[in-house]
Amino acid sequence: MYDLLIRGGHLFTMTGEGVGFVQHGAVAINGREIVAVGPEDEIVTVDRPVQTIDATGCLIMPGLVDVHMHSAATVARGLAQEVEAWMGSAYGPMVRHIADEDAPLFSALALMEGVANGTTTFGDYEAPMMEIAAVHEAMGNRAVLCQGITEIDWSQRETWMEQGWKPGDPAFLDSAIGEAEYEKELAVFDRWNGTDEGRITNVLGPIAADMVSRELLLRAKEEANRRGSRIHLHVAQDPRENNATLQRYGLRAIPFLDSIGVLDGGTIATHLCTAEPEEVELVARRGAPMACCTNSIGTIDGIVPPAALFASLGGVVGLGSDQAAGNNSHNIFAEMRSTAMFAKIAAGSPLPLPAWQVLRMATIGGARVLGVDDKVGTLDVGKEADLIMIDLTKPPMAPVVLHPARNIAANLVYAETGRNVRMAMVAGRVIYRDGVFTRIDERAILRDAQAAAGRFEERLAADPAIVDLAITQLTDRGYI
Amino acid sequence: MYDLLIRGGHLFTMTGEGVGFVQHGAVAINGREIVAVGPEDEIVTVDRPVQTIDATGCLIMPGLVDVHMHSAATVARGLAQEVEAWMGSAYGPMVRHIADEDAPLFSALALMEGVANGTTTFGDYEAPMMEIAAVHEAMGNRAVLCQGITEIDWSQRETWMEQGWKPGDPAFLDSAIGEAEYEKELAVFDRWNGTDEGRITNVLGPIAADMVSRELLLRAKEEANRRGSRIHLHVAQDPRENNATLQRYGLRAIPFLDSIGVLDGGTIATHLCTAEPEEVELVARRGAPMACCTNSIGTIDGIVPPAALFASLGGVVGLGSDQAAGNNSHNIFAEMRSTAMFAKIAAGSPLPLPAWQVLRMATIGGARVLGVDDKVGTLDVGKEADLIMIDLTKPPMAPVVLHPARNIAANLVYAETGRNVRMAMVAGRVIYRDGVFTRIDERAILRDAQAAAGRFEERLAADPAIVDLAITQLTDRGYI
Repeated sequence: MYDLLIRGGHLFTMTGEGVGFVQHGAVAINGREIVAVGPEDEIVTVDRPVQTIDATGCLIMPGLVDVHMHSAATVARGLAQEVEAWMGSAYGPMVRHIADEDAPLFSALALMEGVANGTTTFGDYEAPMMEIAAVHEAMGNRAVLCQGITEIDWSQRETWMEQGWKPGDPAFLDSAIGEAEYEKELAVFDRWNGTDEGRITNVLGPIAADMVSRELLLRAKEEANRRGSRIHLHVAQDPRENNATLQRYGLRAIPFLDSIGVLDGGTIATHLCTAEPEEVELVARRGAPMACCTNSIGTIDGIVPPAALFASLGGVVGLGSDQAAGNNSHNIFAEMRSTAMFAKIAAGSPLPLPAWQVLRMATIGGARVLGVDDKVGTLDVGKEADLIMIDLTKPPMAPVVLHPARNIAANLVYAETGRNVRMAMVAGRVIYRDGVFTRIDERAILRDAQAAAGRFEERLAADPAIVDLAITQLTDRGYI
Repeated sequence: MYDLLIRGGHLFTMTGEGVGFVQHGAVAINGREIVAVGPEDEIVTVDRPVQTIDATGCLIMPGLVDVHMHSAATVARGLAQEVEAWMGSAYGPMVRHIADEDAPLFSALALMEGVANGTTTFGDYEAPMMEIAAVHEAMGNRAVLCQGITEIDWSQRETWMEQGWKPGDPAFLDSAIGEAEYEKELAVFDRWNGTDEGRITNVLGPIAADMVSRELLLRAKEEANRRGSRIHLHVAQDPRENNATLQRYGLRAIPFLDSIGVLDGGTIATHLCTAEPEEVELVARRGAPMACCTNSIGTIDGIVPPAALFASLGGVVGLGSDQAAGNNSHNIFAEMRSTAMFAKIAAGSPLPLPAWQVLRMATIGGARVLGVDDKVGTLDVGKEADLIMIDLTKPPMAPVVLHPARNIAANLVYAETGRNVRMAMVAGRVIYRDGVFTRIDERAILRDAQAAAGRFEERLAADPAIVDLAITQLTDRGYI
């Protein structure tokens, strides 16, 4: 007796080399686990279900994976874009006003946006993670979490300058800060890793090669290995990083990371947007998977991350939404479309990164990046039932054409926005259905988050630095 | 006594140079017309309404304008992308199987997608327009229509080759075909122009400089002028066009069009994607408005249309979705995001085409392109009430931040997908509200369109040329 049978729709299992299409397929689930998947007429003869979900007119596919996000920045969504030097002139001045006690509410907004648009797994990189992890637990999504470890305290800039530091120089590293952050990261790991039978797992997050010392980076890497986990690292994310490693170690960021043995399958390499082609090739060859944040990097820098090159070299690619203040969304449908299209723009050709390949990045690719592909990323017997149901009866998914050529894969990537996601399930439990989040109080969160945004506004208004920002001036001049 | 008062929300009037933000604004409507717009406390003291729409938590802004679309190709959505030479190797082989009698159903799908995502005006360029126009009339949207005029009959290719024609040569023009199509275009114009007090208007559609003779082009232009209308032209849309005008007249397409006096404010110049910068500048200088189809041109050719350059030269730009077989959506939110982001990618900078400017392209810019800016495109007293209501209480529009900087404009362009559109109104009448199309039978159209797609599948299956297409091979090999 199956606990649950989802029947009546088509499947993208994402097994094999493409999307693994099954016409009139079914998925049988016992507890958290997929116990049968395939053509409906084969499944239904094996056993009967206690409960049935009717997927007529729908596609069932693995839930989407957002491999890299900073979830609490949603309160600064729309307040940090269209400026040079985004980190210092837009993002930094805004997000420093996010109060720790409000961060979990803002993270909840990010998860709501993601889940409603088909994301079931989030690689969240945010502080204070001890509290934000509870939001992931409550929402019911899968999560691979870290808080992040830095040794830089930018508030000490004035003091550095007294000691001869100039803008553009590598920032001062403070091992006491690093030590404290490292301990916090381990405490978050110890508290949350393995929660709900492994629905929540943890990694360690030394932020980037320029933001921690070589020693701390190696220590985190070794500790992650010891724990059977990974490190989640920003790699070649900006010129500042290359500049810092050049000055400190005589090597650009990627050669430096390689020289100390950090680039391997247990290191999530996020961005790679300032990497030279031979550096991209080196990361791929070492087996470190790539977290590609197309809309974020495009908005912030006008750069196309090298996902097409990385994938062509056999590297594993997953898609990430990064932060709402500089993307500005947490929607993997938007990432799929942009990733496929930016590759075409960059090449001046319609051929790179076809839809089926980008769909793989958003599912099994993402699961491999986060190291959860043993549990999710495909519809396969023995995996946990993380899946979404997409309505094919309405535009832009309708009409469905199956013979002699199928239109579903291209329409998911180039047309669907997430609106037709009817249901999201994680580990066999429905967490979203027909517009309703089943495990959280959406109305209360929206109300409380808007109230917290009011407190954020007050902090911005009290900060004289905000007045000079481009966005404030556009507001004052009535353009926005 | 106002017929209708929309109150409780914020406004983007799109008047002035930016988005025309009004906090706690209201719009008063009598019949089809806006009779008052501004801060709510000023409006409500003037007169009382018969009826009220509560826009609390929402943004009211002009309905979006899709300046260029071929609406009936939705049945081939997802069946024509990711190939070289799209027209011949993907689009053409598919769309020739669209039966005239089914075309209006497929057009209805396009309009449903557009309206549900906030589009209220469509510049539709499709055949058979005599029947498709009735779909626009029924849906209740605003439309600027043409059927299109060509003198080329590609089915005569074999005969041309017997006469020495080679692929790459300009196609043979047949004035008898042109004459028949011209007469049909005028008949469509006469039947539909001015319908419903001008909600539907018509233009003339000589397709492109290479597809009609100089004489027919000039005749259409003069006739459009005589009728107080415009011509809607594809300009510099592909190398074939430049090649043909070079061979026929010794000039590339844009210099040729200029040499015969066709480039002026009454000519909608669509695409410009093979235009050299000095040709873009010439079009802008002549005052011809640009229809920019970002996602279509990006998908088909990997090209960024020159919207940023055109706008920087003072040219008027509107956004168009082109055709679903090679976009693959009719969603102006998707066009806004891509137009803003592709400009950044092309420039390698986050600065070109800020959100407020792209919002203007999608509203008043589009209205100017189609020549309906006297009636729509801004919320202004005396204009018709074409407007949309967008929910700001849910992600990605929530939370709303207003002081000291506002986040709404950026979030509409970079985060919203159309999902939060709660209501669309045209000429004072609600045509869509809370997921329901008020004037058409959505369920019947979806059912009939899917049945028509089944007939389309049968035609494809009976055509041996379809077997060789890339999309069929991807299907057969199980990738999609």
